[in-house]
Amino acid sequence: MNQNNIFELLQKHPIIPVVTIHDLNEIDPLISGLIGKNIFCIEVTLRTSVAFEAIRLIKQKYGEQISVGVGTIVKIEQINKVTELGVDFIVCPGINESLAKPLMDSGIPFIPGVCTPSEIILGMQFGWKTFKFFPANLFGGLPALKTYGQVFPDIRFCPTGGITENSFQDFLALDNVVSVGGSWMVTK
Amino acid sequence: MNQNNIFELLQKHPIIPVVTIHDLNEIDPLISGLIGKNIFCIEVTLRTSVAFEAIRLIKQKYGEQISVGVGTIVKIEQINKVTELGVDFIVCPGINESLAKPLMDSGIPFIPGVCTPSEIILGMQFGWKTFKFFPANLFGGLPALKTYGQVFPDIRFCPTGGITENSFQDFLALDNVVSVGGSWMVTK
Amino acid sequence: MNQNNIFELLQKHPIIPVVTIHDLNEIDPLISGLIGKNIFCIEVTLRTSVAFEAIRLIKQKYGEQISVGVGTIVKIEQINKVTELGVDFIVCPGINESLAKPLMDSGIPFIPGVCTPSEIILGMQFGWKTFKFFPANLFGGLPALKTYGQVFPDIRFCPTGGITENSFQDFLALDNVVSVGGSWMVTK
Repeated sequence: MNQNNIFELLQKHPIIPVVTIHDLNEIDPLISGLIGKNIFCIEVTLRTSVAFEAIRLIKQKYGEQISVGVGTIVKIEQINKVTELGVDFIVCPGINESLAKPLMDSGIPFIPGVCTPSEIILGMQFGWKTFKFFPANLFGGLPALKTYGQVFPDIRFCPTGGITENSFQDFLALDNVVSVGGSWMVTK
Repeated sequence: MNQNNIFELLQKHPIIPVVTIHDLNEIDPLISGLIGKNIFCIEVTLRTSVAFEAIRLIKQKYGEQISVGVGTIVKIEQINKVTELGVDFIVCPGINESLAKPLMDSGIPFIPGVCTPSEIILGMQFGWKTFKFFPANLFGGLPALKTYGQVFPDIRFCPTGGITENSFQDFLALDNVVSVGGSWMVTK
Repeated sequence: MNQNNIFELLQKHPIIPVVTIHDLNEIDPLISGLIGKNIFCIEVTLRTSVAFEAIRLIKQKYGEQISVGVGTIVKIEQINKVTELGVDFIVCPGINESLAKPLMDSGIPFIPGVCTPSEIILGMQFGWKTFKFFPANLFGGLPALKTYGQVFPDIRFCPTGGITENSFQDFLALDNVVSVGGSWMVTK
């Protein structure tokens, strides 16, 4: 498969918590909180200096229960590094031609971000069918996904960005939405 | 001309009905409905299995009266196929570098979709001056077209997406709008 | 530096007036108006036939006091021309791979426009860190900049488009906004 089975992975996880970890001590309560909500997946962003160490720890301690992904991937070097770490999936905020081959060659399921029809078409040309729609709330939200469902009927999305406890089910109800990403379930 | 005279074609057709045909029996009432409204143009989307057959039939039966275009073109193979069908114009939901040469070589007038200034600039570099602005209602609508009119004064647009019976004239009133696309005239 | 020190230049000029000059006689009152407001910078758009002559005149007469930039750059030929003119900075409405090398080779500070995460990532791959966010008001405004601040913490923006006397300070208050562009200070 061209995206190393990202669709199959997302199908198991309708909710993708996007988490920024500032301190390794946050990990245990965080993971037990997610498991308590029947969420067995986490996307750790690369926005902090402890991100890589946090991913390693989560994999080590909870890797049998939880799918551990990494977010905010924008450079080839990062793809190599997270491949060594053995992450379960990779999330990119955007789509980029020069990242296409390294992502496919990594063997790791990955999902690139798109906003516009042209960005979707670029991904389709690599044979990809599953995209992060990001930032979902700022680039058309639900109506955009409905439009893309008509124009690109084979394409599935994981909308992320501004989705809340009150709105995530409206997104999941769409035929072309496989999962939703967000932080509403870990804040507070 | 770099876009095989798409501008001249659109100039004759201020309203471009975007139609998805599910059953070939829809064709006759559909076309007579359009002609009754003085609309002599149709864009058939490739969203159904009968789309190609529908295009062939409309060309055969109404080709002298109606300009028959095809929408949702995103792959080179599709360009080859619709070239054989002899469609009068091609509509792409987005813009893509690898489709540029096949579109120009087809000899068929074509209009690629754009959302952002960067996407417009990409098209300008191929010498193109006429774009579908899509999805118009979700990427800035009328104010975006006004902004693009100032920044790209030579560029003309066919906005499509969310345009209704109540709003299409506001779009057509802009200097940089040559036509508008939509389905409001065929629904209900 | 990969963008020829655009960030350092923008840091000195929190407000970038975007001006279209129709008549060379507008120049003197325009510049004295800006200086009267403690603004020592101007971006002249290429939207009129006198634009190049206006830039030459402003450079000649006020070049010691005012940083003179040029906007609306979309073609390689324009980069060559404004390099000869000795402009202080270059503004592009979008980002484009084929303009990257000519812009870097010009030796002139430059800022390309972006809307989507994919467009930001493209620029990051050239080593760029400062972007025009345009049209700011139509592609997510303040919330988009906040989101981009989280996802791309090293990136700085100059939002432009629909910013007014009432809103520009809200944009400047963001950590990832270095300057704002607009015309509110020269209209009326």
